[in-house]
Amino acid sequence: MTDANHQKEQTHSASLLIHCPDQRGLVAAVTDFIHHNNGNILYLDQHVEVKEQVFFMRVEWDLAGFSIARDHIGADFQRLIAGRFHMQWKLHFSDELPRMAVFASKLPHCLYDILSRWQSGEWQVELPLIISNHPELETVAKRFGIDYHVFPITPANNKAQARKQLALLKDHRIDLIVLARYMQILTEDFIDNYPQRIINIHHSFLPAFPGARPYHSAHERGVKIIGVTSHYVTTKLDAGPIIAQDVVRVSHKDTVADMIRIGQDLEKIVLARAIWLHLKRKLLVYGNRTVVFE
Amino acid sequence: MTDANHQKEQTHSASLLIHCPDQRGLVAAVTDFIHHNNGNILYLDQHVEVKEQVFFMRVEWDLAGFSIARDHIGADFQRLIAGRFHMQWKLHFSDELPRMAVFASKLPHCLYDILSRWQSGEWQVELPLIISNHPELETVAKRFGIDYHVFPITPANNKAQARKQLALLKDHRIDLIVLARYMQILTEDFIDNYPQRIINIHHSFLPAFPGARPYHSAHERGVKIIGVTSHYVTTKLDAGPIIAQDVVRVSHKDTVADMIRIGQDLEKIVLARAIWLHLKRKLLVYGNRTVVFE
Amino acid sequence: MTDANHQKEQTHSASLLIHCPDQRGLVAAVTDFIHHNNGNILYLDQHVEVKEQVFFMRVEWDLAGFSIARDHIGADFQRLIAGRFHMQWKLHFSDELPRMAVFASKLPHCLYDILSRWQSGEWQVELPLIISNHPELETVAKRFGIDYHVFPITPANNKAQARKQLALLKDHRIDLIVLARYMQILTEDFIDNYPQRIINIHHSFLPAFPGARPYHSAHERGVKIIGVTSHYVTTKLDAGPIIAQDVVRVSHKDTVADMIRIGQDLEKIVLARAIWLHLKRKLLVYGNRTVVFE
Amino acid sequence: MTDANHQKEQTHSASLLIHCPDQRGLVAAVTDFIHHNNGNILYLDQHVEVKEQVFFMRVEWDLAGFSIARDHIGADFQRLIAGRFHMQWKLHFSDELPRMAVFASKLPHCLYDILSRWQSGEWQVELPLIISNHPELETVAKRFGIDYHVFPITPANNKAQARKQLALLKDHRIDLIVLARYMQILTEDFIDNYPQRIINIHHSFLPAFPGARPYHSAHERGVKIIGVTSHYVTTKLDAGPIIAQDVVRVSHKDTVADMIRIGQDLEKIVLARAIWLHLKRKLLVYGNRTVVFE
Repeated sequence: MTDANHQKEQTHSASLLIHCPDQRGLVAAVTDFIHHNNGNILYLDQHVEVKEQVFFMRVEWDLAGFSIARDHIGADFQRLIAGRFHMQWKLHFSDELPRMAVFASKLPHCLYDILSRWQSGEWQVELPLIISNHPELETVAKRFGIDYHVFPITPANNKAQARKQLALLKDHRIDLIVLARYMQILTEDFIDNYPQRIINIHHSFLPAFPGARPYHSAHERGVKIIGVTSHYVTTKLDAGPIIAQDVVRVSHKDTVADMIRIGQDLEKIVLARAIWLHLKRKLLVYGNRTVVFE
Repeated sequence: MTDANHQKEQTHSASLLIHCPDQRGLVAAVTDFIHHNNGNILYLDQHVEVKEQVFFMRVEWDLAGFSIARDHIGADFQRLIAGRFHMQWKLHFSDELPRMAVFASKLPHCLYDILSRWQSGEWQVELPLIISNHPELETVAKRFGIDYHVFPITPANNKAQARKQLALLKDHRIDLIVLARYMQILTEDFIDNYPQRIINIHHSFLPAFPGARPYHSAHERGVKIIGVTSHYVTTKLDAGPIIAQDVVRVSHKDTVADMIRIGQDLEKIVLARAIWLHLKRKLLVYGNRTVVFE
Repeated sequence: MTDANHQKEQTHSASLLIHCPDQRGLVAAVTDFIHHNNGNILYLDQHVEVKEQVFFMRVEWDLAGFSIARDHIGADFQRLIAGRFHMQWKLHFSDELPRMAVFASKLPHCLYDILSRWQSGEWQVELPLIISNHPELETVAKRFGIDYHVFPITPANNKAQARKQLALLKDHRIDLIVLARYMQILTEDFIDNYPQRIINIHHSFLPAFPGARPYHSAHERGVKIIGVTSHYVTTKLDAGPIIAQDVVRVSHKDTVADMIRIGQDLEKIVLARAIWLHLKRKLLVYGNRTVVFE
Repeated sequence: MTDANHQKEQTHSASLLIHCPDQRGLVAAVTDFIHHNNGNILYLDQHVEVKEQVFFMRVEWDLAGFSIARDHIGADFQRLIAGRFHMQWKLHFSDELPRMAVFASKLPHCLYDILSRWQSGEWQVELPLIISNHPELETVAKRFGIDYHVFPITPANNKAQARKQLALLKDHRIDLIVLARYMQILTEDFIDNYPQRIINIHHSFLPAFPGARPYHSAHERGVKIIGVTSHYVTTKLDAGPIIAQDVVRVSHKDTVADMIRIGQDLEKIVLARAIWLHLKRKLLVYGNRTVVFE
């Protein structure tokens, strides 16, 4: 389906994202587990939050020659290692193909960027569905052959539309939702259905300028640098765990329109970076922060 | 033809890009010319190269109510002002619609980005033509409904193909050529036909790593920051006047493949910035440097 | 008194910082004034706030050969130009030597940086006085031979101490006050005595994290970039006109202590940049924003 | 001797910097060694150069309760682990106090910055000695109470002076040499005496603009970003392993003098960052590149 000119076939690998109370011997236990089952570690990174005494780890290993069958890795890891250390963990395989839906409103720049990357094979993902509260971007969706569903939103129909959107997302077995400058606040029920699986791009350097019209606020405040923030959506507006941020210098010469233009380039790049980190399973949320295993 | 949702109608304006030997009274003379003819200055910026004693200026003014007819502005400015001060100048009108051709090879990221911006109405430009030395990106061109011409290049047919490309460009009345990761060296004759009207994106922080495979060289050298450079093409390879540059941090963890992936985001943003500056007539080349009136 | 190895003798020049309602002919009028009096313009920059229709300008010219005597320039400019256009303006001469006082608490990094720059002759300024609420940094002051005055601050003596500080500052004919991580809130009366002449460095990317312990807040919020802000002090805490900002990337690996260490490098550089802009008369405050003529 | 207000007492720790051919079980072997001897790991990071199949690791652990006596750790690690895996390794203790000499010429900014950090207790280092080829900065050294030795350098006395410098450095048991804008090329013999223990700051974004007067070259080339590079000195000029780099935007308005002024702020910050990384034992050189365990 994708152009596939980027798609390089990699060896299949498995990755574990782990966190647990910090204690002696964690790294040794996990690496021993892989080592003794004939796995070759491709990537290992760990992090300890010293104050809270919490341990985080990402380890990825080559599945070629690994002596535990793919279907049994999780159960074996739980029985032999995770249980003993009270670990919370997620196991992923590099050949899984998650399914992503994009929500957009009227601004096309992030949507075009996402579609271009998907189409070029930059990301290992399926993209069966675009949802919007406006009809304007349907031409963009059609250009790439993706279904485009319009759900007009009003204060009155807000919750009912959210339920219909959820049904549609379930029908399409969507794993990840990307808000590509979708200018609506999601319902709590909607968010609760996709914990740590909704990525938003907010057009300010959070926690500065949350909410509406941040470029106007930045101009009004006279800041010399503007930024954008990609984060997981929680029920607290613009306050979820931050995945990626970037900034750019502005000056007194820049009008609000200039800031919007300059900022949009950042928005699409930072949103794409967050999506990539999520798809590559490099993100672990702890409290309201992310551990990013780059 | 474009989506036009970005396209805000602005007042028409005229702009002058001027350079000449520095001397007293230059700013006063130019602003008087506009002022006395009832023009309202929207933008004025000047720069003096102190060592070489050269003066540069960009001035833009509202055409509404301007007392000189559009067709006579140039002649009047030459007779009344420019001649006296030995000025070299270019006059542009904001409602002109330049015509741009894009050259690409096999990498789609810059081409997609350019097409998306054009299609969204971010730029005031016509884009009738894509030229490539390979057939791969034709599907991308078709998606946006643009003519795609393949000119395979070999050492033997190099010059002949360049002449055919030039004929095609003339047929389409092309004003600006953008090399969107076009992996061929242009002939001198070709370049001479479009002085200061061919924009290239080079995937290194020039003058570091000119030529082929700069990400490989950057990795080999162990740099901690990589960059990209957009410049006007001259007959000296990767040595033309620099328009825009940007950089990003890397570490020992980043492989050549990581650098390529990270760098491609910079490439498309920096190339787009250079195109925008050119289209907005904010660039003036002097010697081998650019004056950028941002 | 300074090492003077940086101090290059420049031609003396005059500069005007101007703002007024935007109207036709402003640039021409000012440049004519200089031109007709035989002045050679070294620098000219202007800015128009289009929405508020306010015009800003900085112009600097060589005094050699200028036909108006130094003492009469201001009056002549007012009579011939400024009055007519309702301009507010400030006239400065490049050979003036402003007098600066530094306020510090216990952290030495900004103080050392300021003293080193002053001592090396990087800045054209006199530095007769350091004030602190603690005795710790007196050894630093002594190392550079500067008077160090300790004013312990309590909620009870706050206002009385401010009055004593003001008396001391007046005695030393201080023009500019720099808060080099001075951890006290100034009284309104104190601030009113030095409008747009008190520069502070705040250790966050304002408006994010105003007030106390911003690095702790940044760590708690999980931001991926931290910053610092230099601004003129107004009676509204951490809300005065921003002069300069800079940022640096952090990650989940960085503890609060790391952020403090990394941030301190930014603090001293950004504070020094703001001081330099002020000393070079490149700053114009309008509303709560700065125009920076770089 | 230092102001000590920064100096926080930390638990003593040991760190190992390791590299060896990549093979299964490396991380497990090292962490087991520490774990089984009752060591609590404070920091662990590893890196694999996939192409060359080389493994790098930095591990730091708390010495409190560690069951191997400090003097025996190295021998035990060699016998039990390192020998088996053909590891090259360095063992450091956090309470070691390395001895650093600074070389400077006439520019004071890096020297002042280093002395200020040392004096404030930012770094755990002794600084008994400053060497220069000029007398100008002796006043700076005196201000901080450090011995200042002048070795005038000519093409004729170059090698003889290097030998005298080496003798002086040996007398002072110097572990690390910092070239703080020392404008002389060191002799091969000198460099061979301090492999990976001489840190230089070069005032360009290497490999662009090596050698003399890089700001002049950057201005001439018309780059839009300038940078600085800190690296270990090797016998190939400006080509040693890069430790840290940073950049800053410039424009056509910036003269060479502006670039020098702006660049000097970067120079002192980047040099200080490299020194800090070296002192904290976070650097491992492999081939001509550094692995930086941040």
